[in-house]
Amino acid sequence: MRDRLAMRDRQSHSLSLRSFTRRTPRRDPMLQLRSPPPATSSPSSAVSFPALPPRLLPLRRRGVGTPLGGKTSTAVRASSAAPGATEPEVMVEVAHREVARALASLAEARLGARLLPSAVPPDVAEFRSGGGAGNAVGSLDVRRGAPGSTIDFMLQSSLHCKIPNGAIDITSLLIFLNASTDAPHFLMEFIQGSPTSIVVLLDLLPRKDLALHPEYMERYYENTQVDKQREKVEELPQARPYRSRSLFVRSAFSLTAILMSIDCGQGGEGTLKEIVRGQLATAARALLQIWLDSCADHTTEMEEGERENMIKRDQIVRSKSIEVDLTSNLPRMFGPDVADRVIAEIQKAFGVQEA
Amino acid sequence: MRDRLAMRDRQSHSLSLRSFTRRTPRRDPMLQLRSPPPATSSPSSAVSFPALPPRLLPLRRRGVGTPLGGKTSTAVRASSAAPGATEPEVMVEVAHREVARALASLAEARLGARLLPSAVPPDVAEFRSGGGAGNAVGSLDVRRGAPGSTIDFMLQSSLHCKIPNGAIDITSLLIFLNASTDAPHFLMEFIQGSPTSIVVLLDLLPRKDLALHPEYMERYYENTQVDKQREKVEELPQARPYRSRSLFVRSAFSLTAILMSIDCGQGGEGTLKEIVRGQLATAARALLQIWLDSCADHTTEMEEGERENMIKRDQIVRSKSIEVDLTSNLPRMFGPDVADRVIAEIQKAFGVQEA
Repeated sequence: MRDRLAMRDRQSHSLSLRSFTRRTPRRDPMLQLRSPPPATSSPSSAVSFPALPPRLLPLRRRGVGTPLGGKTSTAVRASSAAPGATEPEVMVEVAHREVARALASLAEARLGARLLPSAVPPDVAEFRSGGGAGNAVGSLDVRRGAPGSTIDFMLQSSLHCKIPNGAIDITSLLIFLNASTDAPHFLMEFIQGSPTSIVVLLDLLPRKDLALHPEYMERYYENTQVDKQREKVEELPQARPYRSRSLFVRSAFSLTAILMSIDCGQGGEGTLKEIVRGQLATAARALLQIWLDSCADHTTEMEEGERENMIKRDQIVRSKSIEVDLTSNLPRMFGPDVADRVIAEIQKAFGVQEA
Repeated sequence: MRDRLAMRDRQSHSLSLRSFTRRTPRRDPMLQLRSPPPATSSPSSAVSFPALPPRLLPLRRRGVGTPLGGKTSTAVRASSAAPGATEPEVMVEVAHREVARALASLAEARLGARLLPSAVPPDVAEFRSGGGAGNAVGSLDVRRGAPGSTIDFMLQSSLHCKIPNGAIDITSLLIFLNASTDAPHFLMEFIQGSPTSIVVLLDLLPRKDLALHPEYMERYYENTQVDKQREKVEELPQARPYRSRSLFVRSAFSLTAILMSIDCGQGGEGTLKEIVRGQLATAARALLQIWLDSCADHTTEMEEGERENMIKRDQIVRSKSIEVDLTSNLPRMFGPDVADRVIAEIQKAFGVQEA
């Protein structure tokens, strides 16, 4: 199955990969992922969707968060060093992780008992690449929604991977709803490929065909004025549109998605931090707030056919995103064994299983 | 009904209009449309979708076209000057009209007898703004598809509207398919607001929810490598993404749509012409060729429910595009009487009627 997926991946993304490389080679941080263990020969696939959460990080107490923009710059050493290895990699603190943690805390505080306690095994909650110095560390946290709530799951992930000239840091926060509602999911992902550049993906992921359902678009995207946040980020002189190389991934996002690459150029470390803690944090918090206010509590009466359609759509989006993103990237970063464990856990959260 | 539409328009687009104005004021040529007869008080709405075709232009003989990039720079005087008026406006020849004409001829040559003869009344085939000097001239041509073919209609339109500091020129070519197929429609639109800048909209308009139908996306958008054309245009240093202010309009386009604003800056008249006759013409021709090869001939077996869904989606996209674009722009350019006639003819082609 993995081989078949890899094959399809190779076939369907070769165009977009090539072209992205040609256009803005330095803008796609994932293209730097060339040296780590090549577990599959598929091309470095789309950056997007779920990557991984902050648990190796300052292990926050549940419900006690860092206020958005607060300073928590402790780098926490990963717990288990590979025996006989050189100094193992640690999860480095970067500005976008502070933002992600603060937002996760905000969501947890608001959702309260609607989130069940974390339920991932310890070797998935924190993991590192197998063998050698362990050049990659990651963490994953999944909290399922309580029975009777609209929440399907909240997934946080964080990933730090050393590469020849630096590191890639990916942080994600996903809050997905179940089939009791058609309201959009919340998605936030930061992919930082250097100290001066970052890709940000921020969206209320639609669960219906927006062209076929203008009333849905009006309710969640027009009336909430969510596009204003995109415009503000787009106004940054350092911002350029970011397009996933995968059309499948692109199709999952709304028309108002913030899909931007921010590049502050040489010497722009400080500027990037300011932007992350400033405009990006503000946009992310605004989007989360809109989601909490307009989506999270909302159950929807639907005809059975309509609900079935929505579930089918959700399943495709979830499967595709795992297939395109994780099954090609994670093995390269962490080796096949660790990647398998982590992917299996994400598949469980997503409610999709590898055939 | 018109009032109701205008009301909805005002309400739903106020956000996007404001923001677009703030971001790139000089990039939206339609925002210059302030002075002509204010038939409605609605804000200048989204540029997009169908505007109008080349019949006041060098009236081409059917099937005999100008080769793409050829030089046909005759400005043809509009036929009926308003009595007692100052010198009436004429349809000025601009580079993008040459391109549109050449593509229309290419399509007509290929579609042959699948297109019925033109069927619009003379006062819609060519029209001008009522009263005074007639500061706007336009033309519309619609050819329905022959019975048994996959073609619904081919619509060409051209519009030239004088404004205080220049003119706006809009040229469109739409070829829509009927319900015997689910293959995408073809859409091309150029909106030129100054001699140095242009907005281009080029797409194979999807007729299915791409997130729900990966096989559809693969067939028409991945395998045809249509995204390559977008990338080539995007590589132009003068190009920037163009976003319609209307989310409804955005939702109609595919993930690979070329939605660009090209601005060559002061003194860039020559450069713009080169780009229009070069990269834009090449991309447009490539897209039309893909459409002719992969979409135009293709009938699709569908279950009845599937077909109904597609027809419903098509109807919404068509209605919304007329509502958002034409019903607010045309009256302002041509006055209500002329606009009503023209809109009625477009509604007939689109198979949607004003309630």
